[in-house]
Amino acid sequence: MTNNKLQKGVLFLVGIGPGDHRDMTARSIAVLRNCDVVVGYRRYIELVEPFIAGKEVISSGMTREIERCSTAIAAACRGKKVSLISSGDPGVYGMAGLALEIVEKQKLRHKLAIEIVPGVPVINAAAARLGAPLMNDYAVISLSDLLTPWEVIVKRLTHAAQSDMVICIYNPKSSKRSWQIKEAQSMLIQYRRKDTPVGLARNLGRKGETVTITTLARMLRYKIDMVTVIIIGNSTTTLRAGRMITPRGYKI
Amino acid sequence: MTNNKLQKGVLFLVGIGPGDHRDMTARSIAVLRNCDVVVGYRRYIELVEPFIAGKEVISSGMTREIERCSTAIAAACRGKKVSLISSGDPGVYGMAGLALEIVEKQKLRHKLAIEIVPGVPVINAAAARLGAPLMNDYAVISLSDLLTPWEVIVKRLTHAAQSDMVICIYNPKSSKRSWQIKEAQSMLIQYRRKDTPVGLARNLGRKGETVTITTLARMLRYKIDMVTVIIIGNSTTTLRAGRMITPRGYKI
Repeated sequence: MTNNKLQKGVLFLVGIGPGDHRDMTARSIAVLRNCDVVVGYRRYIELVEPFIAGKEVISSGMTREIERCSTAIAAACRGKKVSLISSGDPGVYGMAGLALEIVEKQKLRHKLAIEIVPGVPVINAAAARLGAPLMNDYAVISLSDLLTPWEVIVKRLTHAAQSDMVICIYNPKSSKRSWQIKEAQSMLIQYRRKDTPVGLARNLGRKGETVTITTLARMLRYKIDMVTVIIIGNSTTTLRAGRMITPRGYKI
Repeated sequence: MTNNKLQKGVLFLVGIGPGDHRDMTARSIAVLRNCDVVVGYRRYIELVEPFIAGKEVISSGMTREIERCSTAIAAACRGKKVSLISSGDPGVYGMAGLALEIVEKQKLRHKLAIEIVPGVPVINAAAARLGAPLMNDYAVISLSDLLTPWEVIVKRLTHAAQSDMVICIYNPKSSKRSWQIKEAQSMLIQYRRKDTPVGLARNLGRKGETVTITTLARMLRYKIDMVTVIIIGNSTTTLRAGRMITPRGYKI
């Protein structure tokens, strides 16, 4: 008797938070422990190893997102409970959207159940380590022009800068994309003070973590790569006792 | 012999996530369980009651943020381990910034240790329930003009709209602030299609939860209040099988 033929499979889109197990939610841990199959980018799988002993694990390299999604969806359609993991939150530059798109495109909606398990986004975990830079309105922008035209990214950066929102940057640089962060910095410095506080968080919650506070003028002197997120303060962001603080506006 | 005189107190700024215990992080639960004193807005204290049995609890009403912060800081300065709780993430319109500001202003930096414990922001939990609306760049804007001038808020909304970012709205309306969301909707509809998908999440993860998907033209027909967050799609956001999806740009 196989349960699989009787019961619909489930695809869980699981956010594992920035990297430290303590920042995973109770639900994401429970889902990983109770599923049959875990699918994810190799490095993210390593981060959750304590929770997935004995599971079927399907891992793959960078930029294989469509393949990973399709594999996870196929396993769920066979009746399995499948966790497809994303770092941070699966809904912020993670796998949630792509998985939903593929399910719709392939008309598989009725063949599986889908649950999105939110996680602490990397940028919010970075903010906690840097102080309280996101206490006022903020924009979240990816500098990767692999999927979004660079002109669109520049337009968003420009509007965010003009409106004095704090700016959070994902995917600032990779081995193949090195000029985007330089161009972004040159553009932003036209709108914001040179000494605007900037926070850099690399490998947050993981081996080799570095958290740095610098300024808009000096930020390019530090190592920035694809495991770095960046928070650029607004006109009110200050640096106090080594912490970035964007005031909410309370009169104290 | 009192340990309190030997050991520095700690102020933990704890994010408890949207409301459902399963969306709390392992760290936030551990911190609540291990602290001496819990300080928070009455309704948030109720949400974490299972974790704080036997603790000293100091709760107060809305808009008493400065009082709550000061109380929590004072207890930590007396050597206590104190959790000051925020819903969602303490760094997103929560208590982290205010607490850091008060500690600096009162020159208490050396009298206590401070740790910020991030949580799943309410808007990211809302996104997970709505589908995957935040898969591309987004802006997070509070409509409360108690602490930010309305002109600044309108400027940010306008820039966010013009740059085609998804827009996340906190504090859309309260019993004393009812016109702001109407003005915001009138303004946004000048820039975005009337049928732009809009998601409303009320009392997320709490008693009386409602999650609604509607359109920019129709959104004001639904109940909106201070326990509601709103996600307004961009030009590419679609509605499929009752889920909002903002494509990341993958060719599938």
